[in-house]
Amino acid sequence: MQVSLIVLAAGLGSRMNSDLPKVLHNLAAVPLLHHALAAGQALSPARTVVVTGYGAEQVAKAAHDFDPDIVTALQDPPQGTAHAVAVTEPLLSDATGAALVLYGDTPFVRPETLEAMLAARSHHDIVFLGFEAADPKGYGRFIVEGTDLRAIVEEKQATDAQRQIRLCNSGVIAAEVQTLLRLAKSVPLRENVSEYYVTDIIDLARSEGLTVGYVTCPEAETLGINTRAQLAAAEAAFQTRKRAEMMEEGVTLISPETTFFARDTYIGRDAVVGPAVIFGPGVTVETGAEIKGFCHLEGCHISRGATVGPFARLRPGAELAEDVHVGNFVEIKNAVLDEGVKVGHLTYLGDAHVGEFTNIGAGTVTCNYDGVMKHRTTIGKNAFIGSDTMLVAPVTVGDNALTASGSVITEDVPEGALALARAKQVNKPGLAVRLMDKLRAIKAAKKGS
Amino acid sequence: MQVSLIVLAAGLGSRMNSDLPKVLHNLAAVPLLHHALAAGQALSPARTVVVTGYGAEQVAKAAHDFDPDIVTALQDPPQGTAHAVAVTEPLLSDATGAALVLYGDTPFVRPETLEAMLAARSHHDIVFLGFEAADPKGYGRFIVEGTDLRAIVEEKQATDAQRQIRLCNSGVIAAEVQTLLRLAKSVPLRENVSEYYVTDIIDLARSEGLTVGYVTCPEAETLGINTRAQLAAAEAAFQTRKRAEMMEEGVTLISPETTFFARDTYIGRDAVVGPAVIFGPGVTVETGAEIKGFCHLEGCHISRGATVGPFARLRPGAELAEDVHVGNFVEIKNAVLDEGVKVGHLTYLGDAHVGEFTNIGAGTVTCNYDGVMKHRTTIGKNAFIGSDTMLVAPVTVGDNALTASGSVITEDVPEGALALARAKQVNKPGLAVRLMDKLRAIKAAKKGS
Amino acid sequence: MQVSLIVLAAGLGSRMNSDLPKVLHNLAAVPLLHHALAAGQALSPARTVVVTGYGAEQVAKAAHDFDPDIVTALQDPPQGTAHAVAVTEPLLSDATGAALVLYGDTPFVRPETLEAMLAARSHHDIVFLGFEAADPKGYGRFIVEGTDLRAIVEEKQATDAQRQIRLCNSGVIAAEVQTLLRLAKSVPLRENVSEYYVTDIIDLARSEGLTVGYVTCPEAETLGINTRAQLAAAEAAFQTRKRAEMMEEGVTLISPETTFFARDTYIGRDAVVGPAVIFGPGVTVETGAEIKGFCHLEGCHISRGATVGPFARLRPGAELAEDVHVGNFVEIKNAVLDEGVKVGHLTYLGDAHVGEFTNIGAGTVTCNYDGVMKHRTTIGKNAFIGSDTMLVAPVTVGDNALTASGSVITEDVPEGALALARAKQVNKPGLAVRLMDKLRAIKAAKKGS
Repeated sequence: MQVSLIVLAAGLGSRMNSDLPKVLHNLAAVPLLHHALAAGQALSPARTVVVTGYGAEQVAKAAHDFDPDIVTALQDPPQGTAHAVAVTEPLLSDATGAALVLYGDTPFVRPETLEAMLAARSHHDIVFLGFEAADPKGYGRFIVEGTDLRAIVEEKQATDAQRQIRLCNSGVIAAEVQTLLRLAKSVPLRENVSEYYVTDIIDLARSEGLTVGYVTCPEAETLGINTRAQLAAAEAAFQTRKRAEMMEEGVTLISPETTFFARDTYIGRDAVVGPAVIFGPGVTVETGAEIKGFCHLEGCHISRGATVGPFARLRPGAELAEDVHVGNFVEIKNAVLDEGVKVGHLTYLGDAHVGEFTNIGAGTVTCNYDGVMKHRTTIGKNAFIGSDTMLVAPVTVGDNALTASGSVITEDVPEGALALARAKQVNKPGLAVRLMDKLRAIKAAKKGS
Repeated sequence: MQVSLIVLAAGLGSRMNSDLPKVLHNLAAVPLLHHALAAGQALSPARTVVVTGYGAEQVAKAAHDFDPDIVTALQDPPQGTAHAVAVTEPLLSDATGAALVLYGDTPFVRPETLEAMLAARSHHDIVFLGFEAADPKGYGRFIVEGTDLRAIVEEKQATDAQRQIRLCNSGVIAAEVQTLLRLAKSVPLRENVSEYYVTDIIDLARSEGLTVGYVTCPEAETLGINTRAQLAAAEAAFQTRKRAEMMEEGVTLISPETTFFARDTYIGRDAVVGPAVIFGPGVTVETGAEIKGFCHLEGCHISRGATVGPFARLRPGAELAEDVHVGNFVEIKNAVLDEGVKVGHLTYLGDAHVGEFTNIGAGTVTCNYDGVMKHRTTIGKNAFIGSDTMLVAPVTVGDNALTASGSVITEDVPEGALALARAKQVNKPGLAVRLMDKLRAIKAAKKGS
Repeated sequence: MQVSLIVLAAGLGSRMNSDLPKVLHNLAAVPLLHHALAAGQALSPARTVVVTGYGAEQVAKAAHDFDPDIVTALQDPPQGTAHAVAVTEPLLSDATGAALVLYGDTPFVRPETLEAMLAARSHHDIVFLGFEAADPKGYGRFIVEGTDLRAIVEEKQATDAQRQIRLCNSGVIAAEVQTLLRLAKSVPLRENVSEYYVTDIIDLARSEGLTVGYVTCPEAETLGINTRAQLAAAEAAFQTRKRAEMMEEGVTLISPETTFFARDTYIGRDAVVGPAVIFGPGVTVETGAEIKGFCHLEGCHISRGATVGPFARLRPGAELAEDVHVGNFVEIKNAVLDEGVKVGHLTYLGDAHVGEFTNIGAGTVTCNYDGVMKHRTTIGKNAFIGSDTMLVAPVTVGDNALTASGSVITEDVPEGALALARAKQVNKPGLAVRLMDKLRAIKAAKKGS
């Protein structure tokens, strides 16, 4: 059966106190929106429509970053959730099968829950997702009879008895797509708030003889983000869960409460992660690798047996093969390091390829930018790059070659050659003492004057 | 109405197990004493007297660091709180209006609370500050009748019934200044402890027909610091509150529990702060700037659109204009970076000015110290400093100038010129292989011998 | 009286989901096994036998790292705790006095508790260690009568009434060594699990007329590690306790919850430790030293008045004398820095000795590795190493000598001499502008094509 996702992401989120659209605030190093999209796309939907409004262009860009096939529908001006669903109609007019309504600011819904909702459609035409709220205040309450959902009553309209109900509405809906669109377009305006509520499809549906049911999930899944404090709490919840999962899967986290994962971080069994490590998006670490404390990693791959840090920064495109060693105060960007390469200290490698078992001395820099363009550096295998070598790209150093410490390499170095670019040392006896005496005299004179 | 502050700061704080006077231990990156002073000075007092004792010179210095107009009175030897107030008399003999007695080890009293105490003087001659203690054990209990404070009973002297009282004494007092001084000088010695207690002014005041009242505040405001564990707890309380305030004001804190603020940190709306960032005193960050993880910032200003880190250290005097980029393993000290300057990697800029849109290559160092004196480096706009350039100060690089990678710049570089200070590269074919073979042979011989 | 330790360390710990033997997972920067060994060896035992099994070689190595005199007994295949004790018999056949059975995965037992067990042997032949479990589920229950331990009943065999008992078995045992060995060899096989249980010595002992007693300790002491989540919780418990101890002893921890100690970290009174500092094994810090935020320290000594960091890495063999300053992005390995040495920025010192009051400029590197061997660098006192100096070891720089910024020093520098190895600066007027124009033209042409 085909599924269409409708993801509501039009709100500013004024309580965030931000110019950034709410769904673009990051959780686990990616926009909130990506979490909802990931849950929905786990169902392999035929089509995904994101409803944009505030900051529509930025939101559309984030959606396309996640999946270029996503389409967007603009809700302008915002007139409530039913209206948001209704504006997707032109994009879904030929869709068949089920539709799922999700929310860009609700990151923790699990695919299993969505599947349960789709499955519940065998008994009900429309399925809402509810949860038992620890404190139901502010939520719409489910009025149920057996497996039927009779109504959803807003806090303000609820009787005292209804306010005691703890089964609340998450807003997530599953229904046949054309039925959903038709009903969403038909709900009446709520005059008091000048909005169309998607919950009002229940009455319409029931008056047509359609049945409305519900599925429940833990409250934690339906957590919506409205303030920065809630976002920080959601981040903490994500991290706590991810750390526990990692440990369960056999990753050694020395100090889990100081390790920060991204949504997609993958780490193999028996890899070791020290305290204070930050994973940005797109990091994979193979089994048995070691990441020491104070590392900052994004968009990189670290192979089996490699050791990284402390104080290492791996940026997008850093590819570390087996047994590579990257030490302290080293930055690697868009560079492939083959097996056994060692880069121990104070080095910048950008736009480079380093062959296997090559040693990069302390203070080495790939000068990849000439002020206008970026260029590549290629270093062969078993080479030895002396400390403080400047590799002025584009440049190639051959296999088994050696650069003398302090050299500026502007021309290619042939295989097996020694490249040298430095002045001869001269010792001037006694001059250090005389120079220092002079400087001290100048300083004393300045003070005296 | 004029206000005089009397801040008691004479104690060693023996439970701190430290040689440092208690009020000089840091909270939120500044001495404890500064917190009490900040609360008091929010009332714009005409005069502030800090009572010193243990480590009097150090404490006086810290007080003057906060405000050079503060005066100090030495209490030597210490003979109790009434004695501490009394020693300020020579400095306040001509003062009029109200006096407020504060404590250097009580950092969280709010100015609003002090204002409420001053206001309460319209009904009472003397006003004490009380709080409802969760656990009153050890505190002096307020014996009240309506709005009157009849007595403060110490734990040891309290009856069983009085020990049930949870309204306790914070020690903070507001009164007409000359009345306070006169009463403080008149309290009798408590023979059992050989001290004069300022709480004993209540009896004296009431016997003169003066009225004594009280104001209350939350217990958290009156938290006093006696041990390092309490100091750490106070630090945690400060950070928790500051983080919440920041988020409320629209700052994005990726991982608030790992962000450490100073008392005076200011960050604009929609600025982003990554995990593990430490703010020392005197940092301001404008709206929309980004501080990545693992940054250490003190006494610096970061303008709109600038990006900093990860692994950046900004020291006092670092001024980053709009859209400046400071990358990893970069230290900036006493240096102004104009709009759009980029300093990406492994660089030290100290005592320098860099003009707009100039690019500083990796491994650049301003050699600002000659072993005796410090000197300045001036770089123009749109310049390109090649990687590993040593700028031997004092030195000037002109607008649109370029330094070749690996150059040691000892003389000024004119506008638009290329400065070059390096040896020509020579490749010696096969020499790398022969050298390595030789080294391996030496090693083998050493092992064999 | 002589004591023999028997430390059981044969298990894989399958719930750790790891290839590493359980007792080799680190707690407080050293293997779990070391914690149990440290508790036992505090009693100055005559002999320590570690029972190995899974990963026997690795476990034996870790035991010998702790104390080369430790002997190991291989239990292969594993057949229960009584069997583990029994396999030590050949190594203890001539031992006299008491034996203590400890567990390699139980790190928090205190020496005082073990001493109490030995002392209890004046009343009982065999002494078990018990604890009051908050939740006794899964533990063996102590069936006691007065001071006698009558039996230990496993959860599965327990009656409902016995399951209410909260006094549980920790597994730790004290007994006369030959008695223990004899009994351990005699316990019958438990058919249902195909194992020999050491708890079954109780029946045997009592049938011989020996008495069995018990001692209790807090549950926290007997905490055993079975999962990575438990290991992380144990790490957190260790850190919490160590931080509190440090503060009690007068160490200033700015942000204790982000400071990570090793088992053996020693820090003097009034030393200051900033946020986010990681202590590996073997670090001692003297009174009044300061470690700023983001430091990573292992196997090093920091003397009185020294300041380190932020962003400093001290590796094994780093010895900092009084008033040394090590600044940001600096790595020190196997190097002695005499009094007053300053290494402020972006430097690697490895295999070196630096004399007193010498200043090391930014970007300095000791080139200690030639691709085959490591060599030493020796720098005298009051020397000034210019920024970006490469010291190609083996090399010596004399007292009061000076190296010019950007020099590669390959030959010894005499006392008081200035060493210079650099090309003269040439300024080429207008060339920077022409070069940049050319690069921009190339880029434009590329885009156009």
